[in-house]
Amino acid sequence: MRTTGKARRMSEFDRMLAANREWMTGYPGDRPVAPARGIAVVSCMDSRMPLFGLLGLEVGDAHIIRNAGGIVTEDTLRSLAVSQHLLGTRSVILVHHTDCGQTKSTDSELADLIERATGHRPPWPARTFVDIDADVRHSVAVIRSTPYLLSTEVRGTVFDVGTGQLREVS
Amino acid sequence: MRTTGKARRMSEFDRMLAANREWMTGYPGDRPVAPARGIAVVSCMDSRMPLFGLLGLEVGDAHIIRNAGGIVTEDTLRSLAVSQHLLGTRSVILVHHTDCGQTKSTDSELADLIERATGHRPPWPARTFVDIDADVRHSVAVIRSTPYLLSTEVRGTVFDVGTGQLREVS
Repeated sequence: MRTTGKARRMSEFDRMLAANREWMTGYPGDRPVAPARGIAVVSCMDSRMPLFGLLGLEVGDAHIIRNAGGIVTEDTLRSLAVSQHLLGTRSVILVHHTDCGQTKSTDSELADLIERATGHRPPWPARTFVDIDADVRHSVAVIRSTPYLLSTEVRGTVFDVGTGQLREVS
Repeated sequence: MRTTGKARRMSEFDRMLAANREWMTGYPGDRPVAPARGIAVVSCMDSRMPLFGLLGLEVGDAHIIRNAGGIVTEDTLRSLAVSQHLLGTRSVILVHHTDCGQTKSTDSELADLIERATGHRPPWPARTFVDIDADVRHSVAVIRSTPYLLSTEVRGTVFDVGTGQLREVS
């Protein structure tokens, strides 16, 4: 059974490489490194959000920054600063979503779960949250108040994983 | 000119909402929160990588974690731990790319640039790097040696922004 599981996972990688060989035949070719539409998207890593299609983005249009929860961490701010100062983006759009894993546990429950499974307690908080809309508004406020960013527009949305609809929050 | 600029940027957001209204008509409907193919992708935020198409992923297949450089930061490890312990993924694929903004500057140059533009020096290093393949191999090694992760497969690739081709590195 273990061998079968490993074989299946190995083939996931080969499957991705094969899919890429087919996909690249329609690749539009090189675009400038600076995003054409001056947009940076900050979103959750959730598997139900293909952000290029979902937001109508073409190759070369926008930076996409994603983590567990789509929350604004120090690493999000680092990425936004590189995006704005080095590559000229100015609009930021945040995308949280319904049915988020980060609302299904607490920081201490998740740390306990990890410690029980591996014997090691992680050196960071998992950054779970309860209210999706409130976390979007908080994230927008953090970006707007970060003194070393150059954002001219920061907007927050929630994606409905049931319908595919994006709802404006702030 | 300033009003024109603002109007253009406002309409980028409206344009995204309009694109979403059209896109959602083809949305396949709800999928489970746990990724169907058990994959987490760690990639750069670069605008030329629509990862769902590029890797042959469908809605619900994989987590997508992205930051400036696609490097493994504490926030990347937090996201991977949530992905693995809470939502059951086990394979990790890293995607760096050619012509990366993170190879075009140094940490101190970027900090200087930000300080000159805003009067504020960022409290973090930008995490620039020089050798793309070496950074992929380093990132793979960091994930493999993180004691609180459960990865069974960690693979590293570089995407060619000129051709659209994904090259296996490790």
